[in-house]
Amino acid sequence: MTDRIRVGIVGYGNLGRGVETSIGLNPDLELVGVFSRRDPLSVETARPETPVFALSELDGLTDAIDVLILCGGSRSDLPVQTPELAAKFTLVDSFDTHAKIPEHFAAVDAAASAGGTVAVISTGWDPGLFSLNRLFGEAILPQGNTYTFWGRGLSQGHSDALRRIPGVAGAVQYTLPSERAIERVRAGENPELTTREQHDRECFVVLEEGADPEAIRETIVTMPDYFEPYNTTVHFISAEELARDHAGMPHGGFVIRSGESSPGVTQTIEYRLALDSNPEFTSSVLVAYARAAARLAASGTTGALTPFDVAPGLLSPKPAEQLRAELL
Amino acid sequence: MTDRIRVGIVGYGNLGRGVETSIGLNPDLELVGVFSRRDPLSVETARPETPVFALSELDGLTDAIDVLILCGGSRSDLPVQTPELAAKFTLVDSFDTHAKIPEHFAAVDAAASAGGTVAVISTGWDPGLFSLNRLFGEAILPQGNTYTFWGRGLSQGHSDALRRIPGVAGAVQYTLPSERAIERVRAGENPELTTREQHDRECFVVLEEGADPEAIRETIVTMPDYFEPYNTTVHFISAEELARDHAGMPHGGFVIRSGESSPGVTQTIEYRLALDSNPEFTSSVLVAYARAAARLAASGTTGALTPFDVAPGLLSPKPAEQLRAELL
Repeated sequence: MTDRIRVGIVGYGNLGRGVETSIGLNPDLELVGVFSRRDPLSVETARPETPVFALSELDGLTDAIDVLILCGGSRSDLPVQTPELAAKFTLVDSFDTHAKIPEHFAAVDAAASAGGTVAVISTGWDPGLFSLNRLFGEAILPQGNTYTFWGRGLSQGHSDALRRIPGVAGAVQYTLPSERAIERVRAGENPELTTREQHDRECFVVLEEGADPEAIRETIVTMPDYFEPYNTTVHFISAEELARDHAGMPHGGFVIRSGESSPGVTQTIEYRLALDSNPEFTSSVLVAYARAAARLAASGTTGALTPFDVAPGLLSPKPAEQLRAELL
Repeated sequence: MTDRIRVGIVGYGNLGRGVETSIGLNPDLELVGVFSRRDPLSVETARPETPVFALSELDGLTDAIDVLILCGGSRSDLPVQTPELAAKFTLVDSFDTHAKIPEHFAAVDAAASAGGTVAVISTGWDPGLFSLNRLFGEAILPQGNTYTFWGRGLSQGHSDALRRIPGVAGAVQYTLPSERAIERVRAGENPELTTREQHDRECFVVLEEGADPEAIRETIVTMPDYFEPYNTTVHFISAEELARDHAGMPHGGFVIRSGESSPGVTQTIEYRLALDSNPEFTSSVLVAYARAAARLAASGTTGALTPFDVAPGLLSPKPAEQLRAELL
């Protein structure tokens, strides 16, 4: 390792672009380049000076890169890429298909252990920071309940469902944490809540010429699974408003643990994210875990890890002594 | 180590009592006993079955105890006890004099390294959980500001200052996070705030027979350093109300990190504790870190550590595989 940690980005969508920007805010990291399956000449990076390579060029660069940050999707990219690349490179990903984490971990662990690399999977915020807060909450207050609320956040799947309705020219859908539910949890009521009771849905819809707003509203709020079970609000807006006010990708949410340390003594831990940009925030978390992965690899660790296995101090560029003096 | 982790409590005030209760909620832990400087016969434990020993009896028990939880005060107990006991026992403390942490760490590290034990210092919530959130916030959003707000919480020093005023028969003071300041921070304004601007003070005062409430209110709100610089509210209550409504030790607060991941894109991380009992919550954190300390010692680690150095998964009784499947 040189003085700076040398980082490669694999995949260049919203996440890869966010990682590129985030590396620019971290002077102890050096961006070697972006590695893409596309023709490198067709990739326009956020910073013009960022080198772009074909993914196949990675092979010769094992000595030039300390850690890769994988920015592909969890559905089809990461299940293949993470184990494949972990055989040769220390890396991090943000694999977020919760149900398939054990399977992904096993495949990555086999590759990383054999290759003598470190692979930190499922960094990001959920899984990732939210998972850490679920763990801390349960470990500290074993007698209690944990609640995860998502939003206010853009939901791609629900936005797509709106766009498929005849008469809809454009639409976005935000998932909102239910204020009623949050207040009950904060008050220490420990309610039994389904995911549906915890969330509301808000739709912003652009109508096609001549479409009937009331008919479309009815179609939306009665749509099974997607909207019918929820408290759903529909706003009709112009195409200009959609483009102007709804182009961002905000997200966030809460993890709340409420428990009793002795009978009648309620203790509440609340963790909240309010994100202007979901991909940029996930990128920022990936970058901090990339620093930790490179350090762990340099100190001889091998195999797959998750945020549960990484000592928090490794995420910071500051030495342990400075962290104790300044932040403890 | 037997199947269960064997724990000893050193010191038995509010914190020791909280640890005793907390161990009862954690079936993987076994309480060996309370070790006190007082006559063991004079110590009344929360659970009648808890054995009480003289502190001097610890010496012979190095093979019977996996980890000690130190429940003394940071001013005079822990600076002596933690290094002394770390020479022979793996242990945790909640040393909370921020300015003296480097010095305390050095003394404890020397003792624990020489003794081949693990000593996790400054667990609790501040230092402790709040410190972790300051670290995560700064590592993930390097461009931004961190704000720590304390309260609503009982302040012993300010309550004492009220009680010293002639004409005051009894009093408590709560420190409150300033709602104005929190709103500015949440809105992403990144304001420059002094600790004083971040906090308000609320006083509940019982008057002596014949005392003049207006004169006493004036004495309080103009008291230099303690109350004059703050937005201070004074309520006069009866001795019965003081005893009935203000006997608890609530505390809590917020750590908020607000930063930009790219120009104009604000990301906010907020961590909040609302605690009915400050000592019982600190005890619960100590117990989780005691589990981690015992595991680290069993796996061959030695020396002083802080929460920055402890992988979060070690705090949970669940095996790593279960944590990945259930909480990630």
